[in-house]
Amino acid sequence: VAVKSDLTRVAVIGGSGYTGLELVRLVLAHPGLELTYVTSERQAGKRVRDCFPFLPPYLSLEYQAFDLDAAVSKADVFFLALPNGVSLSVTPKLRASGKIVIDLSADFRFQDLKIYERIYGKSHIDPSLAAEAVYGLPEIHRQAIRSASLIANPGCYATSIILGLLPCLQAGLLSDHLPIIADAKSGISGAGRKLEATYLFTECDQNIKPYSLGRQHRHVPEIEQELSLFAKTEISVLFVPQLVPLRRGILSNIYVPLRPDHPSLDEIVDIYSRFYQHEPFVLVSPLGIIPCVKDVYLSNYCRLGLVLDQHTRTLIVVSVLDNLLKGAAGQAIQNLNIILGQDERAGLEFSAPYP
Amino acid sequence: VAVKSDLTRVAVIGGSGYTGLELVRLVLAHPGLELTYVTSERQAGKRVRDCFPFLPPYLSLEYQAFDLDAAVSKADVFFLALPNGVSLSVTPKLRASGKIVIDLSADFRFQDLKIYERIYGKSHIDPSLAAEAVYGLPEIHRQAIRSASLIANPGCYATSIILGLLPCLQAGLLSDHLPIIADAKSGISGAGRKLEATYLFTECDQNIKPYSLGRQHRHVPEIEQELSLFAKTEISVLFVPQLVPLRRGILSNIYVPLRPDHPSLDEIVDIYSRFYQHEPFVLVSPLGIIPCVKDVYLSNYCRLGLVLDQHTRTLIVVSVLDNLLKGAAGQAIQNLNIILGQDERAGLEFSAPYP
Amino acid sequence: VAVKSDLTRVAVIGGSGYTGLELVRLVLAHPGLELTYVTSERQAGKRVRDCFPFLPPYLSLEYQAFDLDAAVSKADVFFLALPNGVSLSVTPKLRASGKIVIDLSADFRFQDLKIYERIYGKSHIDPSLAAEAVYGLPEIHRQAIRSASLIANPGCYATSIILGLLPCLQAGLLSDHLPIIADAKSGISGAGRKLEATYLFTECDQNIKPYSLGRQHRHVPEIEQELSLFAKTEISVLFVPQLVPLRRGILSNIYVPLRPDHPSLDEIVDIYSRFYQHEPFVLVSPLGIIPCVKDVYLSNYCRLGLVLDQHTRTLIVVSVLDNLLKGAAGQAIQNLNIILGQDERAGLEFSAPYP
Amino acid sequence: VAVKSDLTRVAVIGGSGYTGLELVRLVLAHPGLELTYVTSERQAGKRVRDCFPFLPPYLSLEYQAFDLDAAVSKADVFFLALPNGVSLSVTPKLRASGKIVIDLSADFRFQDLKIYERIYGKSHIDPSLAAEAVYGLPEIHRQAIRSASLIANPGCYATSIILGLLPCLQAGLLSDHLPIIADAKSGISGAGRKLEATYLFTECDQNIKPYSLGRQHRHVPEIEQELSLFAKTEISVLFVPQLVPLRRGILSNIYVPLRPDHPSLDEIVDIYSRFYQHEPFVLVSPLGIIPCVKDVYLSNYCRLGLVLDQHTRTLIVVSVLDNLLKGAAGQAIQNLNIILGQDERAGLEFSAPYP
Repeated sequence: VAVKSDLTRVAVIGGSGYTGLELVRLVLAHPGLELTYVTSERQAGKRVRDCFPFLPPYLSLEYQAFDLDAAVSKADVFFLALPNGVSLSVTPKLRASGKIVIDLSADFRFQDLKIYERIYGKSHIDPSLAAEAVYGLPEIHRQAIRSASLIANPGCYATSIILGLLPCLQAGLLSDHLPIIADAKSGISGAGRKLEATYLFTECDQNIKPYSLGRQHRHVPEIEQELSLFAKTEISVLFVPQLVPLRRGILSNIYVPLRPDHPSLDEIVDIYSRFYQHEPFVLVSPLGIIPCVKDVYLSNYCRLGLVLDQHTRTLIVVSVLDNLLKGAAGQAIQNLNIILGQDERAGLEFSAPYP
Repeated sequence: VAVKSDLTRVAVIGGSGYTGLELVRLVLAHPGLELTYVTSERQAGKRVRDCFPFLPPYLSLEYQAFDLDAAVSKADVFFLALPNGVSLSVTPKLRASGKIVIDLSADFRFQDLKIYERIYGKSHIDPSLAAEAVYGLPEIHRQAIRSASLIANPGCYATSIILGLLPCLQAGLLSDHLPIIADAKSGISGAGRKLEATYLFTECDQNIKPYSLGRQHRHVPEIEQELSLFAKTEISVLFVPQLVPLRRGILSNIYVPLRPDHPSLDEIVDIYSRFYQHEPFVLVSPLGIIPCVKDVYLSNYCRLGLVLDQHTRTLIVVSVLDNLLKGAAGQAIQNLNIILGQDERAGLEFSAPYP
Repeated sequence: VAVKSDLTRVAVIGGSGYTGLELVRLVLAHPGLELTYVTSERQAGKRVRDCFPFLPPYLSLEYQAFDLDAAVSKADVFFLALPNGVSLSVTPKLRASGKIVIDLSADFRFQDLKIYERIYGKSHIDPSLAAEAVYGLPEIHRQAIRSASLIANPGCYATSIILGLLPCLQAGLLSDHLPIIADAKSGISGAGRKLEATYLFTECDQNIKPYSLGRQHRHVPEIEQELSLFAKTEISVLFVPQLVPLRRGILSNIYVPLRPDHPSLDEIVDIYSRFYQHEPFVLVSPLGIIPCVKDVYLSNYCRLGLVLDQHTRTLIVVSVLDNLLKGAAGQAIQNLNIILGQDERAGLEFSAPYP
Repeated sequence: VAVKSDLTRVAVIGGSGYTGLELVRLVLAHPGLELTYVTSERQAGKRVRDCFPFLPPYLSLEYQAFDLDAAVSKADVFFLALPNGVSLSVTPKLRASGKIVIDLSADFRFQDLKIYERIYGKSHIDPSLAAEAVYGLPEIHRQAIRSASLIANPGCYATSIILGLLPCLQAGLLSDHLPIIADAKSGISGAGRKLEATYLFTECDQNIKPYSLGRQHRHVPEIEQELSLFAKTEISVLFVPQLVPLRRGILSNIYVPLRPDHPSLDEIVDIYSRFYQHEPFVLVSPLGIIPCVKDVYLSNYCRLGLVLDQHTRTLIVVSVLDNLLKGAAGQAIQNLNIILGQDERAGLEFSAPYP
């Protein structure tokens, strides 16, 4: 094997959960990245592919217990796939060593740390780092991402819903004072690899289960923060998430009340298409086409479909993505591509398998 | 086996589809009914349980090709589990012979036959029968059902959504001029046993698929007819159905805009509980409990859960049922129990299996 | 509600696992039984149907923490749905009070307690009770069950495989010295409600997973004990179990090497049919019909299909059952019916739902 | 986009079934291939990605109706993903134009055309082409594949079972006169995209369904032909296939009776490991590790696990693969890589997603 001296050395911290494993997979497939360090406290000392035999035989790395000195010497970019609250303690040290950090937890997503502290029940230990962090949604913050060293990678539901609403907000299509409703369904991997009865096969199969209804879900403040910043006015979203029996994928139906003099559906499709025309990973379906989860399973695309209910003056935006790709690890790679000045699509344009 | 001379003789017309087979199952388990005639044009001449070995060994009936004289001589009650449009031609003859007909198609659900003709693309051949038919939702029409001889058994989505809204309408909780949104997810058996690629395992598994969005679905006029009649004012519903990968079950999230001076959630739960307190098959969950599909899988109950989003002044009604039971065959038996003056719960109070 | 004074009072000890809940369901549906006592250490004090909302609204019992005095005063029959090893400590006290005990664990299944102790890693505390226990497979031990007070209810895999082989053994069809192979697939509920990563939806879905191959599985000694006793010669079985992504059901393919002068397949089907002709819950499929899991899902039947491969002189027995019914709770009820001298089919002849 | 002038131009004939779509996906991801022609009689004239939106947006090809002149001018390699019997009529013309043909049907798999004609019910129209065809299992026929122009790509079950047995046969481990039994489970995509009730979600979910038991399945003669050729003696296999509710994947348990003086399991694992040590896509699991379908889902690897049951002197080989990759399209690409003299792993070493 030839030495590829120009590859960026990448670490995955927390490499035995679903997001961490997806990052491992994507880094291995990426032409410009080299996986040099993977941690798992529980699996430390074991070969990664002995723990997860679906990984390819050419992967010879072992899991490490996290050690700052080793980490700093081994890699230049750090993906943190850690539980909420844990990134807080790791990030300052990595940043102090000049490393690029892409954090997939919620720890750096909030501008108002009081919100973070209220939702996640932890005090934020580093407000200056929080201020430095860029919310890693390229469709809004690409410019800031380019020069960022700390990325707060967005939540999966949040990505799905924010992308479904941006063109509406920019074009000023919303009716005042009426609620936006987002009814979202997620595959079970969205819960991670948690050992709770709720996530057993026997409990998930043949079930649909709403949870954290209304404004109770942790992604709501994240969604509202970004939409309000973008719209330069306060935007509220009524959010209802549900578990459905599939492994991956999110489908969000977003119900948007339109202002009385709204454009036609044709024109709205056109507004969306133009808004996203240069975006590599957001695809607006033509008039009359509604995407489904299969259309984005195992791809990094978010697909949007649009329907207008004239009777109630409501725009229905159907937004689908793979929660572990555009909703997590794929978006993290996209952010890294932007930071490194590479083609934003590098390592992410794979064709999805079927069926 | 003793002769049970006081049993009502029951026929299932169209007994090889999912609804027909569920009717067969329920009639077999019912203490007051006897299955005497089952038709299937394709399977005529074969023993029912040879075609469907999951049926119990004591069932010795053969499928018949429908024949009016034979039918009339064999049974006193006819469940029609036929495609839309076919009941139209069978029902007049059965009614002319004085038989009780419970039709599970859409053929007799509409008061305004123009709506039927527009949606189903067929002219209605018997307006007088249509006028005689009672929409078989006991929670609204129990009194009329008692003396009815022709029941138009409601659609599965329709049952789920109407039951979720009745107490709201009666209590006048709705805000004027704002749309009600119903985001509904159905298991695949809702499509019947259709041989279309959409319903293959390979296509349904790992997918969520919206279809007939907005007001395109055939159940919308049925829902609006019943809600408007009940509320004595025109009610519109924006309805978005979706296929999710489970065999049975419907979960509808109904988003209801409340009037500014609406009661508290406590009071609303109380309004719902009182509304349904004498209903044997509608259960209102206590405050804080949200039902899921597993809670009603293989039972005849519709369960309702309530959440109030004060920020947007929206009531979220979560309504779950089994589409083949309270959404079809179970409701048909419930209607027959009412007509026969039996305990409305007869044959329907089985405990659901788990998991 | 009328007092049904002639009902047998039944307790379910361990009523919050899958087997315990299935027992609750079956007892509620049984015309001759009354559920009077249900225990769960973790859920003690809560209403059973508040923990498991799929249970019917007329069930008003609360979970109790097990207490011997209360138990003895409340019920006459005890179903023990407890982990292996725990029944050992409960049973002697219940038997000392004269109660009928039907134990669904492995604690009383073995005649040779050394085997039990080797497999389950526990010393057996009561050899005299072990000797008194009857292995609760009615198809072999009906006579002994009639007068038994302690039933060791068979394992799910064991029931499936033993029933598939009995007629072969009786008719002396086996070739000497050649192995019987049983390749068995089980739904995930076979593992109970264990919180292990193996049983998460994300891990089970889209997977088939062999485990405990060869003679490693705990059910092998149980299978061999019963077959050897029945055949009056030592019978060995090579057993390979696998997890497949369904909730319930076992399908075992049993490969039986036949003696050179074996009868024709027609005759073998006849041998099987005659062997089981008076059995209420074993159904032999006619020549050419092979059962599948759907045929027995949610029913108490074990169905057998037979194929002869003349080239290799191998009989293939396909044996299917529902692991929680004929494989556990249903068989336990069947055993109780026998003990009580009731119709053996009471409460068990329900028709299975479809799809 | 730069012109990649050194790419091999590839056609997929029959590009709207599951195998055809998998070929499209693999060709798009392959660094040395260019997809230039895709046919579908039904979809002719439509853009491929409009029919299948999961395909990436950079795919701009339209489906063509097959036309020999157009085909010949557009591509140099032809993958035929056609129904059995149809390849027979297309292949002679393509070969006459000097094209490389990799046929994924059964049409050229048989040396003895009488077997083909008996099983597939069609007369073989071109015995000389049949003689020229090479059975495309690289692990046996790599040398012949290198110089072949017509490849008969193996069946999915056949690949799984043959690869599980080759080392045994070479090492002469089999007992004489005793049957090899292969109990195989397949995901539903193995049936293609057939519109039959058997393959509906409602019928497959919560089911396991054996079919074509014994020696009835079409893959048996193919398996026996290759094993007998390799072993230079007649080898028979008792084969039992089953449908299980997953989309992709095959797990075969192969029960091999060993000769009395067989080596230890350690040595057998070593024999297998050495046999496959240079094979890029067959992985032998270390002693004690048994592969499952998840380990090969969406990868081109076949994984083998080995267990010895000393009591019955039976070797259990667990063989898993993805039926659409190593079982069909992936193997076809592997064959093409060999023919083209490229790295055999080109385009096939992707890491599998999880979960």
